[in-house]
Amino acid sequence: MDLSFFNNKLTAGLANVHYGDQPTALYEPIRYIMALGGKRIRPLLALLGAHLFTDDLDPVIKPALATEVFHNFTLLHDDIMDQAPLRRGQPTVHEKWNANVAILSGDVMLVRAYELFFDVRLDLLPTVLRRFSQTAAEVCEGQQWDMNFETETEVSIAQYLDMIRLKTAVLIGFALELGALLGGASLTDADHLRQFGTGIGLAFQLRDDLLDVYGDAATFGKRVGGDILSDKKTFLLLTAQAQANAAQRAMLTHYIGQPVLNAEDKVHAVRALYDELEIRPQTEALINYYFQDALQHLERVAAPATRKEPLLQLALQLMDREQ
Amino acid sequence: MDLSFFNNKLTAGLANVHYGDQPTALYEPIRYIMALGGKRIRPLLALLGAHLFTDDLDPVIKPALATEVFHNFTLLHDDIMDQAPLRRGQPTVHEKWNANVAILSGDVMLVRAYELFFDVRLDLLPTVLRRFSQTAAEVCEGQQWDMNFETETEVSIAQYLDMIRLKTAVLIGFALELGALLGGASLTDADHLRQFGTGIGLAFQLRDDLLDVYGDAATFGKRVGGDILSDKKTFLLLTAQAQANAAQRAMLTHYIGQPVLNAEDKVHAVRALYDELEIRPQTEALINYYFQDALQHLERVAAPATRKEPLLQLALQLMDREQ
Repeated sequence: MDLSFFNNKLTAGLANVHYGDQPTALYEPIRYIMALGGKRIRPLLALLGAHLFTDDLDPVIKPALATEVFHNFTLLHDDIMDQAPLRRGQPTVHEKWNANVAILSGDVMLVRAYELFFDVRLDLLPTVLRRFSQTAAEVCEGQQWDMNFETETEVSIAQYLDMIRLKTAVLIGFALELGALLGGASLTDADHLRQFGTGIGLAFQLRDDLLDVYGDAATFGKRVGGDILSDKKTFLLLTAQAQANAAQRAMLTHYIGQPVLNAEDKVHAVRALYDELEIRPQTEALINYYFQDALQHLERVAAPATRKEPLLQLALQLMDREQ
Repeated sequence: MDLSFFNNKLTAGLANVHYGDQPTALYEPIRYIMALGGKRIRPLLALLGAHLFTDDLDPVIKPALATEVFHNFTLLHDDIMDQAPLRRGQPTVHEKWNANVAILSGDVMLVRAYELFFDVRLDLLPTVLRRFSQTAAEVCEGQQWDMNFETETEVSIAQYLDMIRLKTAVLIGFALELGALLGGASLTDADHLRQFGTGIGLAFQLRDDLLDVYGDAATFGKRVGGDILSDKKTFLLLTAQAQANAAQRAMLTHYIGQPVLNAEDKVHAVRALYDELEIRPQTEALINYYFQDALQHLERVAAPATRKEPLLQLALQLMDREQ
């Protein structure tokens, strides 16, 4: 079955979600950010997770969309914290309106995300809500670690991986687990799918770090070298710092955490050092490790191989972002 | 039964709530704001609502505390929006830490508030969660109206009353409805208690407006005249504006919305005008109207009069804040 079949279901479901009307300053920003689009990966994964076990996807649509509303809530609040001017090429909510409107409409989005779960079958409702809440808190923890790391001088690779696990991967894992649970999966299979999603999420985020340095400017969608210019402590930088010899460390110290005199110069110099230290193949190896581990969890799920096809297809698409 | 019996249960319950540990920048602010105290009126009302129908209050404690965690979440985010330096005499979270920490720890508080409901009896869970979510969204709507009113030139008395209903009263109404539902009340009785709470909430907020102008500085806890100095569109000011003759209107325009040259002078002049227009007895009449209406709803609840005693006692206490 084609991914567009599932995407169409989500588009139709999203058109039926009512966030509220008055005051417009509260509800208009929600419609605005939800209309900015994006790939809607999380609800799509939830539907694909359910499709492994059932053809009755209707009861899955609203809970699946809850993950998308929640994800956009985190983007809305993160953009305030990061003082980001743009989101998907459009002004962020706090830029278009103001920070107060962005805080408050984000708060209501979190409430609306919860509401999208309340039609879940009663015997599954507490489990689904507990797992969603745990995931939601973890995503906030990840964002806080990410902010902490900006001012911390010593961040370990393990801390970084744990941060991206919390900030990005657990929600992708939850989306799949949610779909599995609602589709009637056993708890074991639901957990395999959660781990499949978490692995995909980790690989996806590391790939994003890699593309920021080595991506094709025409297809990446963000400014190549942006992480280097902002001294972001990515897996690439932390690995380079851990493996640099004295001379290489001096070079890093010359560029990282210093005012940028020439942006192109800085990006070139740091990238050259990454090449010297073979950071790219090391990152690709870790991406591959997470991806293969994820696939093994998918393999162990007790569902027909044909039903796993769309999930595999989407996972491969996510890893092939460059092409 | 004495109110301290119920308060002790809440204090013990609150000590058992675990918000989270790491990162501390996320969870420490939650413990900080929850430890600032306050009267814990909402969870107390929830317990008293349940006590009308049952002696088994243990299952009510965590959901009751959810209303307190939610209330403190709204204070935390409202304080950012209002740029308030102090909360209960102590630095606000965004002052003690920063705005980003306040946004994110507030977000987790909302998640934790939801979690406190998840042990509710399964047959009541969807109703309780739907009503809580509706109330939570309404509280956000009230805060947005409140912010809108700051810059709007024309605010009607009806709009103001609707704002305080959303921002303050509905949560008090929900706390009582929640207690009633968990105590085993009929839907009719739960709704009477909701309306009792909403009425008390409206009366309480109007009394707060009144005390801001006519309160005793020694016992009010906030600066008397604060609303006048900040040109806050309270019931008193809106009523005065609606009833002023040309000369009185000119006097108001001279003071309201203008830079304050002499604070004491401004407070005295506006209060004198309120006296001239008999704003105080009119406000007291409306407070009394809401309070009496609330009492009628309590009266209609099918529970023994002795069980209603603590609720009455608390309602009277709330109205007698001055003494």
